[in-house]
Amino acid sequence: MDDQTVAARPRVVIVGGGFGGLEAAKGLRGAAVDVTLLDRQNHHCFQPLLYQVATAALSPADVAWPIRGILGSQANMTILMADVTGVDTRERCVRAGDMEYPYDFLVLVTGATHSYFGHDEWGPVAPGLKRIEDATDIRRRLLLAFERAELSIVEEERQRLMTFVIVGGGPTGVEMAGAVHELARHALPLDFHHIDPRKARIILVEAGERILPSFPAHLSDYVRRTLEGMGVEVRTQARVIECDAEGVDLEDGRISAATIIWAAGVVASPAAEWIGAGSDRAGRVEVAPDLSVPGHPDIFVIGDTARVLQQDKPVPGIAPAAKQMGQYVARVIAGRVAGAPLEEPFRYRHEGDLATIGRRAAVVKLKRLELRGFLGWLFWGAVHVYFLIGTRNRVSVAFAWLWNYLTYQRSARLITQDRPAGPPR
Amino acid sequence: MDDQTVAARPRVVIVGGGFGGLEAAKGLRGAAVDVTLLDRQNHHCFQPLLYQVATAALSPADVAWPIRGILGSQANMTILMADVTGVDTRERCVRAGDMEYPYDFLVLVTGATHSYFGHDEWGPVAPGLKRIEDATDIRRRLLLAFERAELSIVEEERQRLMTFVIVGGGPTGVEMAGAVHELARHALPLDFHHIDPRKARIILVEAGERILPSFPAHLSDYVRRTLEGMGVEVRTQARVIECDAEGVDLEDGRISAATIIWAAGVVASPAAEWIGAGSDRAGRVEVAPDLSVPGHPDIFVIGDTARVLQQDKPVPGIAPAAKQMGQYVARVIAGRVAGAPLEEPFRYRHEGDLATIGRRAAVVKLKRLELRGFLGWLFWGAVHVYFLIGTRNRVSVAFAWLWNYLTYQRSARLITQDRPAGPPR
Repeated sequence: MDDQTVAARPRVVIVGGGFGGLEAAKGLRGAAVDVTLLDRQNHHCFQPLLYQVATAALSPADVAWPIRGILGSQANMTILMADVTGVDTRERCVRAGDMEYPYDFLVLVTGATHSYFGHDEWGPVAPGLKRIEDATDIRRRLLLAFERAELSIVEEERQRLMTFVIVGGGPTGVEMAGAVHELARHALPLDFHHIDPRKARIILVEAGERILPSFPAHLSDYVRRTLEGMGVEVRTQARVIECDAEGVDLEDGRISAATIIWAAGVVASPAAEWIGAGSDRAGRVEVAPDLSVPGHPDIFVIGDTARVLQQDKPVPGIAPAAKQMGQYVARVIAGRVAGAPLEEPFRYRHEGDLATIGRRAAVVKLKRLELRGFLGWLFWGAVHVYFLIGTRNRVSVAFAWLWNYLTYQRSARLITQDRPAGPPR
Repeated sequence: MDDQTVAARPRVVIVGGGFGGLEAAKGLRGAAVDVTLLDRQNHHCFQPLLYQVATAALSPADVAWPIRGILGSQANMTILMADVTGVDTRERCVRAGDMEYPYDFLVLVTGATHSYFGHDEWGPVAPGLKRIEDATDIRRRLLLAFERAELSIVEEERQRLMTFVIVGGGPTGVEMAGAVHELARHALPLDFHHIDPRKARIILVEAGERILPSFPAHLSDYVRRTLEGMGVEVRTQARVIECDAEGVDLEDGRISAATIIWAAGVVASPAAEWIGAGSDRAGRVEVAPDLSVPGHPDIFVIGDTARVLQQDKPVPGIAPAAKQMGQYVARVIAGRVAGAPLEEPFRYRHEGDLATIGRRAAVVKLKRLELRGFLGWLFWGAVHVYFLIGTRNRVSVAFAWLWNYLTYQRSARLITQDRPAGPPR
């Protein structure tokens, strides 16, 4: 291939190095295109295990992997760490600060962030879990709450410090509640002399009728019973009215709590605004059956940023869906470049749902398989290790889990932050 | 033992959970005292390996361990995360914010921090390496420099971004220079397409006549030759006049560099001010032969915070020295409580000096043993793994090193910070 041919190759710009972005990039490995992947982070984050970083079971490097390490060896790839600020659909270029990146095809996979349903002021007191930094922030809050309770000499204050509210009964909320319970019940008791971390109150709050609404009702029930059997309080049909540094107001009363974790709503990143496309209430771009944006056949939106309907039901915002969309879009682009456009529309194959509740308990619902308890837990662990990126992370996570399982220890229980810890308050 | 006896037990307060503080606490395990250890962090940090976190070889949790995990099972211990703000030597209590902790014996092990020799304004552009947060900050700077160089289209700017200055030719500076070189030479080249990280310029600047002044001259020479053979520029008798965001001014000219790492001077924490004791230029408290403070026989100062002379030479500010002081002070306190005061003064036993230069090269100088090259490197690694706290950290570090050695990869090359990465500049 001579220089001229190279210069004439269509340019594909992918914005976002999450599950969908990586698959789109990999899918274009053999295509006659030049691919540029832009992300404002230098790493891909394996979000399904982020809650384990937040609860001191894993280290950040266990669930994150430098994007360059994943795609760097792909010859037609350029990876740039850049914070995209807009898209010029007329000039067909992506803007990041002073820089412009022209595209022939654009794939937007910018993900989603927490939604506080119009109450953004709750953000500082009720952090959500999307990035590595969120996880180390929540880890710091959880561990500091126990540290402050140990220092406290006022019983009421100690109670408040040892109360943890998790808002949202989806998989993230359930897994977080189970993991906080394990931290308090198993990892910390020997650490403290003035307080008994086993007496921590962990409350899972869900606005809907049941937790894990994407699972069959009997599995939701099983998870609720298991959580309650462990000592976690589960409150369904409980809507949050107010969050502040002292606690949470529910419709039926107030919970005094020093730590609130938000696992309730998500809102798509501002990709719809960048391209002036129609979006739903959650900010997701309404895409055509081939995942392109109506009126912009050269722009694709995938992952949590897209609203994709399948048999009148939206495709869920989970990793396998984003991966499938990434693979599909790569085929669409490669087909168009090769002059053999793909005819079939995107079809989502739902592989199943998984959620772990804690030590030796999880629920698994696949097409033909349903597991719970210890077996479900083993399956859950094996699947997550399998989907981690890189042998090193697989070994490291498997070792950390084995270690945690055998010793009940949480070795990553570090409180770190930018400034030195202030005086206890 | 009845309650009354317990109440009458002398109270020992230890401020600081570094090497000296931990050893003092452990040494008092069997003594009839109540021990309270205060630290503003919740973890002990294994400083000798912190530079490997800064250069993406290890994770923070590999070199840090919760203090509660180390001492929590000791019956006479209370561990509190608190930021000490002063000592009332008349009332005999330690102040941390609103709280007061009365003591019968006080052990101050508050360590040291970087000294910019009166130029504290250099701090933001030339960070030093003392805490976990410093290490992740330096890691972010190192990796961001390459990311920005990849984005840059101006050759001069790219040069500046790929120039790294390490100030200070002691063990920390040497190890940092070697590790940055390895990162650039081995771990990153496949990651980038527009720049060649192997062309990074790494400059080790030392004001004195030779690097590693605590080693015999021929080992200093060996280290210098090895570093230079690798491509690191070593500049001795080079004093830093000015540091700013664009580079460093030396007496003999300017180096344009985006990243400066400070490994030059240390200054003791303000313990001397708290107790109104005499201190040397580096802020270290001048202590009596039993490590107590003249005029305050119930207050001991140890580790990097103390100036201890032995045969007219100051005891070096290294981990083994701090540990020995901690063990000694525990024996002094236990002896006094038991009514059998220890007669002998503190005597420092120098075990030796170690420094690693990089892959397969280190220098080791013990009393009777001198190693260099591959053998020195193996010895260095074995000693460091041995002195790490906890089986889990030993396994994790050994695995990470083996992995790095075999694959040349640095798996912890994550850029994390409080806010999302801004646009490239």
